[in-house]
Amino acid sequence: MPFFPSKSRLAHIVFEHDDRASKTFDVVILIAILISVGIVILDSVSDLHFSYGRIFYILEWVFTLLFTVEYGLRVWLSKRKAGYIFSFYGLVDLLAIIPTYLSIFVMNTQFLVVIRSLRLLRVIRVLKLGRYLKDAEFLSEALRASRNKIQIFIGSMITIVLIAGTVMYIVEGPDSGYTSIPMAMYWSIVTLTTVGFGDITPITPLGKLMASIIMLIGYGIIAVPTGIVTSEMTLAKSKKKLADARACRKCHQLIFDNDALFCKYCGEEMPKLK
Amino acid sequence: MPFFPSKSRLAHIVFEHDDRASKTFDVVILIAILISVGIVILDSVSDLHFSYGRIFYILEWVFTLLFTVEYGLRVWLSKRKAGYIFSFYGLVDLLAIIPTYLSIFVMNTQFLVVIRSLRLLRVIRVLKLGRYLKDAEFLSEALRASRNKIQIFIGSMITIVLIAGTVMYIVEGPDSGYTSIPMAMYWSIVTLTTVGFGDITPITPLGKLMASIIMLIGYGIIAVPTGIVTSEMTLAKSKKKLADARACRKCHQLIFDNDALFCKYCGEEMPKLK
Amino acid sequence: MPFFPSKSRLAHIVFEHDDRASKTFDVVILIAILISVGIVILDSVSDLHFSYGRIFYILEWVFTLLFTVEYGLRVWLSKRKAGYIFSFYGLVDLLAIIPTYLSIFVMNTQFLVVIRSLRLLRVIRVLKLGRYLKDAEFLSEALRASRNKIQIFIGSMITIVLIAGTVMYIVEGPDSGYTSIPMAMYWSIVTLTTVGFGDITPITPLGKLMASIIMLIGYGIIAVPTGIVTSEMTLAKSKKKLADARACRKCHQLIFDNDALFCKYCGEEMPKLK
Amino acid sequence: MPFFPSKSRLAHIVFEHDDRASKTFDVVILIAILISVGIVILDSVSDLHFSYGRIFYILEWVFTLLFTVEYGLRVWLSKRKAGYIFSFYGLVDLLAIIPTYLSIFVMNTQFLVVIRSLRLLRVIRVLKLGRYLKDAEFLSEALRASRNKIQIFIGSMITIVLIAGTVMYIVEGPDSGYTSIPMAMYWSIVTLTTVGFGDITPITPLGKLMASIIMLIGYGIIAVPTGIVTSEMTLAKSKKKLADARACRKCHQLIFDNDALFCKYCGEEMPKLK
Repeated sequence: MPFFPSKSRLAHIVFEHDDRASKTFDVVILIAILISVGIVILDSVSDLHFSYGRIFYILEWVFTLLFTVEYGLRVWLSKRKAGYIFSFYGLVDLLAIIPTYLSIFVMNTQFLVVIRSLRLLRVIRVLKLGRYLKDAEFLSEALRASRNKIQIFIGSMITIVLIAGTVMYIVEGPDSGYTSIPMAMYWSIVTLTTVGFGDITPITPLGKLMASIIMLIGYGIIAVPTGIVTSEMTLAKSKKKLADARACRKCHQLIFDNDALFCKYCGEEMPKLK
Repeated sequence: MPFFPSKSRLAHIVFEHDDRASKTFDVVILIAILISVGIVILDSVSDLHFSYGRIFYILEWVFTLLFTVEYGLRVWLSKRKAGYIFSFYGLVDLLAIIPTYLSIFVMNTQFLVVIRSLRLLRVIRVLKLGRYLKDAEFLSEALRASRNKIQIFIGSMITIVLIAGTVMYIVEGPDSGYTSIPMAMYWSIVTLTTVGFGDITPITPLGKLMASIIMLIGYGIIAVPTGIVTSEMTLAKSKKKLADARACRKCHQLIFDNDALFCKYCGEEMPKLK
Repeated sequence: MPFFPSKSRLAHIVFEHDDRASKTFDVVILIAILISVGIVILDSVSDLHFSYGRIFYILEWVFTLLFTVEYGLRVWLSKRKAGYIFSFYGLVDLLAIIPTYLSIFVMNTQFLVVIRSLRLLRVIRVLKLGRYLKDAEFLSEALRASRNKIQIFIGSMITIVLIAGTVMYIVEGPDSGYTSIPMAMYWSIVTLTTVGFGDITPITPLGKLMASIIMLIGYGIIAVPTGIVTSEMTLAKSKKKLADARACRKCHQLIFDNDALFCKYCGEEMPKLK
Repeated sequence: MPFFPSKSRLAHIVFEHDDRASKTFDVVILIAILISVGIVILDSVSDLHFSYGRIFYILEWVFTLLFTVEYGLRVWLSKRKAGYIFSFYGLVDLLAIIPTYLSIFVMNTQFLVVIRSLRLLRVIRVLKLGRYLKDAEFLSEALRASRNKIQIFIGSMITIVLIAGTVMYIVEGPDSGYTSIPMAMYWSIVTLTTVGFGDITPITPLGKLMASIIMLIGYGIIAVPTGIVTSEMTLAKSKKKLADARACRKCHQLIFDNDALFCKYCGEEMPKLK
């Protein structure tokens, strides 16, 4: 590998994942993302900010320059520059470096907190790698197949939340903390999802009775999204398995091993699969 | 489309959902329902009530008049007027407009809150549209099939709640907040459904031990409603899929593609499905 | 029906459930149980006790005498008296009436609370009826089949609780409320079952990190009991369904309707089922 | 059995589990482990430590000496001594006795608490017995098969936690207790796992809205790990059951009873299984 690789070689390193140099590039960027995300997180802890703020500041600039170089490379090496710049990951790559430059010009500390936090968008870049994981594909497929049903479920839940919230607002009222219908709806979501913070709780006997009924409903319907996803997953798999089933011509037993040449029960030659 | 449509044309627009005019009518009503529900919710927030109360009041009357006209149209256009008026959705349509008119005559503010909240019943009207969603049908069918089992499950849970509540009432007593058996039963429901508000918690060691056992039981039985719904859903689907299965006459392999004309493994012509 | 039924007729009324008289007897006893349980519950609310204590006291004696007569009848009419008296439901029937009689002799109010609460054991008698429900059988069968696995699961959970509790006890210590290992184990159960009362919460950063890990573990393993029960239920049902499957001799399609005489796809006569 | 058993006989008693002497040895050690673990737990309760500390101290030494003798025996009787000493269970056996000896030399009470708690590692030794349970094998197999998917799921959850935590940190800020991003991430985990301690809760309306969305997401994704484990378990079982299926040669019905010699529908002799 020459010291200055050719432009096409460089494009290969940046965009592909199939040899040592390109894999090393991916791993270096991945580690840089994770460390820089870690720094943003730690920097938000005031104790650590006071002690190590300077180091975090310097490291932040190092990583920002690294990501800027990487972004520049990607734009320069892309065949369709606009295509990359306005793609989802292109925008994420850009948004991951802008906040640091912006922070130079911003004096308002309140706004600075928001800008700094935006740097955490870098973590989305890690998801890019998730696309190469086979099992992740299986998961997202099962979720996609159940999307319609989950939307309908969320829809019906919002209706339940609205009714439950209104009932609690009427029954308990502002004295118990249910100061408005949105507040009571927030309480309903906290309760129906079984999170149960306890920041607002029913006080009157009738309110406790209503809350009990709402909790039992929540307990009952938690089964629904689980059922949707589970049945989708089970069937996706069982379909694959059943498609591999062959019945032996002689002994009529079902064979599921898709590499069997002979029936494992009677020795008869099996029909070829696929 | 003439400016004044005929009565039969109007009935088509109001009751059907199959051409542009009738779909537009549905969408306008849907949006009006959602906005008016939003107004009732926002009006319950005292800050917003003080600032925008007047606007909310005017909008509320606009929507009420709109819904009144719609209700009048539905009654006038129905072939069986009594049938519509006393149907479930007919009553909901009526209850959605009455509160606003009632609020003119009511001076008692406490009662006014209740009456105003009743306007949220309008949200139930949105459910009418749910009937046309295919996946919603699938969901409600799975729930209907498991209804018996869910009832039995709720029945056994009430028994567990009663026993758990009594035990905690005896063990902890009024000093820890378990002031009565109903109160202890409320706590049991909060705990068994894993909501866990924390408004009442065991204080004595024996109470904590009992609570731990109750929590583990709740954790164990949460599996039951999930199991019921999931198995119902999985089987409803797998039944549908298996009904499409055909065995090839020549190579005996099972084919699940319902549009296959020839066996994809050996080329033999497949028997026609259905 | 004569005014004084014969002993054998009386035994039929008390023990069987197949004609009008015996069903009426069952329903009367069921209602009496539910009302008397309701009275015990309401009597534990101090407001109601002060207002209606006298009425509750009289009703309690009425029901106790009714249950005493019923218990006497059951003993008298049983062919194997000792068999009934020492059976599970025989003991429950006895324990349901003893507390009221005992309360005459007990002066200690603290002890009186316990004795009175024991009357709630009557609710167990309701379970007797559950045995005649077909779906309840299905549920309890699925639970019985998964019993071994649930025991092992509970066993591993206790180990996790012990380790998690010890870790939190060392990391957080008495200052945050983790005053002893049993206390920390109680917290672990509250957390792993996702109840989350919030009466004890981690305060130190390390404690919060450990708690986060424990919560994610709890979130992951909640899937296990659900998986056990669900797969048991799904298979119990699918076994039943597959056992009814027949392949048509002519068109080779699978038929799941167990009352089909002819293939619904090609009209060929089906082989008889069972 | 002679009073001093031979070395090979002793090795059999210690390492095997197939006759009375070796089973008795296992049970004695198991009971000793459970009692000594119980003592460590009870000793951490300060009330009990003050009252029974002396007895606990003596018992602790008795058990430590017993475990030391057992450890010595295992080392002496092992054919490959280093193999045992550096095996997982060999290290656990050693770590279970060292703390008691160490506590003699340690004066620092803070450190003593940690050392004493280490004795609870003994409970891991109980797991050794779990390996002989058939159902435990089934459970761990299902978990192992879903390991990849659970890892990916945990990975995506950490991303969600990071984003949710950042959003809440920006929206609510230090005034509501979200003092840093790690703190807000801790809150996100508490909320997404539906534990909901309530030690930190959103206060501003926007924060409550964001929290509601996060809770609904948590409610939706709780289905995913359940779905993974359940579908894995259902298929592991259904595969086993399908492998036993045989089609009758004459009437084409599927037979699942693996001990059937003749078709239970038409009497035709069944092909032998396996």
